Amino acid sequence: MSDETLISALVDAVGADHVKQDADELGYYGSDRCRGTWSVDPRVIVLPKTVEQVQAVVRAAASASAKIVPSGGRTGLTGAATATGGEVVLSLERMNRILSVDVPGQTLRCEAGATVEAVQIAAAAEDLLYPVDFAAKGSAQIGGSIATNAGGVKVLRYGSTRSWVSGLDVVTASGELLHLGGSLVKDNTGYDLRQLFIGAEGTLGIIVGATMRLCTPPKGLLVALCSVPSDAHVLSLFTRARRELPLQAFECFDQGCLKHVLEHRGITGRGPFAEPSPQHVLIEIEIDGHGDDAQERAHDLLTLCLADAQDAGEIEDAVVAATAAQAHDLWDYREGISESLHGHTPHKSDIALPISEVTAFLEVWRPAVAKALPDAEALVFGHVGDGNLHLNVLKPPAESAESFVARAKAFDEETYALVQRFGGSVSAEHGIGLLKRDHLHFTRSDGELTMMRAIKAALDPRGMFNPGKVLPA
Amino acid sequence: MSDETLISALVDAVGADHVKQDADELGYYGSDRCRGTWSVDPRVIVLPKTVEQVQAVVRAAASASAKIVPSGGRTGLTGAATATGGEVVLSLERMNRILSVDVPGQTLRCEAGATVEAVQIAAAAEDLLYPVDFAAKGSAQIGGSIATNAGGVKVLRYGSTRSWVSGLDVVTASGELLHLGGSLVKDNTGYDLRQLFIGAEGTLGIIVGATMRLCTPPKGLLVALCSVPSDAHVLSLFTRARRELPLQAFECFDQGCLKHVLEHRGITGRGPFAEPSPQHVLIEIEIDGHGDDAQERAHDLLTLCLADAQDAGEIEDAVVAATAAQAHDLWDYREGISESLHGHTPHKSDIALPISEVTAFLEVWRPAVAKALPDAEALVFGHVGDGNLHLNVLKPPAESAESFVARAKAFDEETYALVQRFGGSVSAEHGIGLLKRDHLHFTRSDGELTMMRAIKAALDPRGMFNPGKVLPA
Repeated sequence: MSDETLISALVDAVGADHVKQDADELGYYGSDRCRGTWSVDPRVIVLPKTVEQVQAVVRAAASASAKIVPSGGRTGLTGAATATGGEVVLSLERMNRILSVDVPGQTLRCEAGATVEAVQIAAAAEDLLYPVDFAAKGSAQIGGSIATNAGGVKVLRYGSTRSWVSGLDVVTASGELLHLGGSLVKDNTGYDLRQLFIGAEGTLGIIVGATMRLCTPPKGLLVALCSVPSDAHVLSLFTRARRELPLQAFECFDQGCLKHVLEHRGITGRGPFAEPSPQHVLIEIEIDGHGDDAQERAHDLLTLCLADAQDAGEIEDAVVAATAAQAHDLWDYREGISESLHGHTPHKSDIALPISEVTAFLEVWRPAVAKALPDAEALVFGHVGDGNLHLNVLKPPAESAESFVARAKAFDEETYALVQRFGGSVSAEHGIGLLKRDHLHFTRSDGELTMMRAIKAALDPRGMFNPGKVLPA
Repeated sequence: MSDETLISALVDAVGADHVKQDADELGYYGSDRCRGTWSVDPRVIVLPKTVEQVQAVVRAAASASAKIVPSGGRTGLTGAATATGGEVVLSLERMNRILSVDVPGQTLRCEAGATVEAVQIAAAAEDLLYPVDFAAKGSAQIGGSIATNAGGVKVLRYGSTRSWVSGLDVVTASGELLHLGGSLVKDNTGYDLRQLFIGAEGTLGIIVGATMRLCTPPKGLLVALCSVPSDAHVLSLFTRARRELPLQAFECFDQGCLKHVLEHRGITGRGPFAEPSPQHVLIEIEIDGHGDDAQERAHDLLTLCLADAQDAGEIEDAVVAATAAQAHDLWDYREGISESLHGHTPHKSDIALPISEVTAFLEVWRPAVAKALPDAEALVFGHVGDGNLHLNVLKPPAESAESFVARAKAFDEETYALVQRFGGSVSAEHGIGLLKRDHLHFTRSDGELTMMRAIKAALDPRGMFNPGKVLPA
C-alpha cells in the first residue's frame, strides 16, 4: 500500500483534521522526554476520538504494513513513546473522558487519554483517592501510566500502577477490542491478560480505556525529616519505622542532593539541620482519625519512634512538621532535587535493589564511581523504602556534555553489573523503552527474553506495535 | 518411548522410592477435592525432592510425549489437580522447605510444596504476617495457592495471592528453570512473566519455588456481627463501613445459613440475635495500637459506626466481641457454614460481581432459583466486601443426589447467564479447572479465549502441562 493510500485510509478513519504531517507536529508528537542517539522520525500523527477510530487506524496500518507508536502524555524517560522509523504515532490525547465513578465499588472508568491528575481529581470529588502519584501527573495519561506501570512516591504504601488496574480495554494487532476484567475485585477465570499489557510499553496492544481502583483517602498525614549518619543507618531506621509506623512514604537523599537544592534556591544558611549529615530520610505517616486527638496520637507515635531511633544512633536530628506548610517545605527538599540538578547535566540511573541489599550496594558503588569518574559528583536519592535508588552523576563544569555522557555511559555497564550482582533491577520504575534495551540482560535472563519474544510473537505477529522498544533486536 | 522406558527414566530422575504406581497411591495423588463426571486415571506419581529432579522429570515426560499434572495439596475445588488420562502426577510435597525470611525486606523464600500455614508460621516467628488466609491452609501448598491465585477471608484488606508474589521459580516445558523476579518491590523491565503463571492452574509451567511478600501484622482486631434487614442494606452498610472503618473483613450470610449452623451445632436457642433476620454481616476491623487506649478507641469507632448504621436502618441489631473468645465465636457462625451444609449435598457456585451489582443480582437470582428449583433451599454467603458470593442450593431430602445434581447443573446455566448480565465472574476464587471449563465463555470473550490459547501454545507448544484444564477443548 502506498504512502498516499495509508494517509487517505487514516483520514477516512479519524478525519482530515486529526491526521498531522507538519514538521512541527511530527516533532511535537514524535518523541517523549528522553533524547538519545536515535533519530526522531514519525511518518504521520493520528488523533482518534473513539475506540472505533483506534480500531480503524490499527486496521489501516496493518494493511499498509505500517508500524504504530502508541502515544500518551510522552512524559516517559526511556524513549518508549518515540517514533524512530516512519511509524504512525497514535495519540490518545483526544480520548480523555472520565466516564464514571462507582462509589460503593470504589472504581473509576475513563478513556486512556485522561491525565493521571484528572483521575485523581475525579476520585477526590467523591471523597476517594487514586493513590498513584508522581511529578508528571498533570501531563502523564492513565493509559501511558498503565503501559509503563508507573510508580512514584507512594508505592511503599499503595504499590505501583499495576495494583490499581481493575479493567483494561485493549485494541489488539487484529484491530479487535478486548474488554479485560472490569470492576471485579476477584476473577479467577484463566490467564490474567491485563497483566501482560501493564508495563509492556505499548508493544502488545493499545490501551484505549481503563477501570481503575480507588481507595478511602487517609484522614491526615504527618511528615518528618531526619538527618542520618550513614547509608547503613537508613536501612535500620526503615526496618524500625515499618514496624512501628503507618508509613506512607520513606524517601532518602544524601548530603550532595541537599547541597544542590539549597544552592538552587539561593539558600546560604544552614538548611533544615544545624549540622551537615551524610544522609537524610523523609518519613510520612498516616493519621488514623480526624481531630486534634488523632493528630496528637500520630505526633506522639512518630516522635517516640524517632526518639528510639536517635537512642539507637540511627538518626542524628529530626524535624517534625507542625503545619501543612512545614510539611510542604520538608517535601520540597526531596522533590526539588531533580530540578536543582538539571543545570549540571546529570547522568541518571533508576535502579531497584532488594531493600536489605541497598547498603551493601552503595558501599561498593560509591567507591566505584569515585574511581571511574573521580572528577564527577555522585549523588543518591530515591524511594529507598521500595529499594528504588536514583543514582546521579554530574558533569564536571569544564567538560563537554558529549565527552561526559560517553564516560558516564561507559560507567553504566559497571553500575548495572553491580545491580545484577546484588539481585537488583536496571529499571525500577522508568521502564526500558529504547534507552535501556541493551541493558535488559543485566536483569532478565536469556530464558526470560526468549519467553518475552514468544509472547510478543503470539500477540503481535507482524511486530506492528511500538517496534524496537523493550526487547533488544 | 514405551511405558517401561518412561518409568525407568522417572526412576533415574527421582529414585525408585519416589515413583509410585500402586492403586491406592494413584487414587490418593490422582485428584483434588472436586469429584466430577471425569475419570481419575493417573499413570504414575513422581515426588521429586529438588528443582533439578523436577527438570529431569519434565524432560523425561517430554521425550516420552507424556503429560504432567502438577500437584500441590490438592485442596482445590474445580478438578484442576486431577489426572484424567494417564498423566504423570508431579507432586511437590517433598519440596516443602522454608528457605529464608528477609526481615528488613519483609519477604520469605520457600519451596513450592511448603504449606500456606508453614509460610504463615515462619513469618510469625519474625513478627511478620503472610496475610492470605483460607480454611485449607494446613494442606494447601504455596505453589498451588499461587497457581490458583487463592483468595480467602482477608482479600478485602490484603488482596489475593497475586498481590503477595514477589518472585517465582518456574520450570518450563523445555525443562528450563526461570527465576522470575525476586525480592524486589519495583522492577519495570519488560513483560511481568510472573503474572502469567499466577492463576494459570499449572497449565503453563511448574512453580517450584517462590519469594512471598510479608507485612507488619495488625496490632489487634475487633469483630462485630450485625443482623441486617435486606440484601440492599448489606451494600449500604458496606459503603459506610469502608469509609469509616479500617476494615479487615466484611462477610455476609443469610438467615438460612445461620439456621443450618445452629442446627448443625444442636443449638435450639436463639443464636446470636433475639429476632431472626434476613441477612447478617460480620465486620472485622484493625486496632491501630497496643494497650487499652487503642482497644477502646477501636471499640468506640466501631460502635459509633454501627449506631449510625442502625439510625440509617442498615442494621437491626449488632454484637461486638468483648473478648478473643467471643470474636472466635462470631467468626464461627460464618466459618461453620460449609461444614453445616455438607450433609445436605449442596450444589455450589463461587461467583463474583461488581460490588455495586450484588443487590441487583440477588433480587433476580433468588426468585429465579425459587422458580427453577422450588423444592430446593437456596442459601447465600460469602466475601461480600469483595463482591464474592458463594451460592448454595441444597438437595431436597427425598431426592436422589444424581437427579438433584442434574437439575442443579441445568440451573447453573441460568445463574451464570445472570452473572454475565451483571458483569460478574463465574469463578471468583476457586478457578476453572475441569469443573467450569465449559462455563468460561460466560466471563471471557472469544477474543480472550483465543489470546489465552495463543499464550498456551507459545509457552507449552506440545500441551504437556495439566492437559484439559482451564481452556475448553
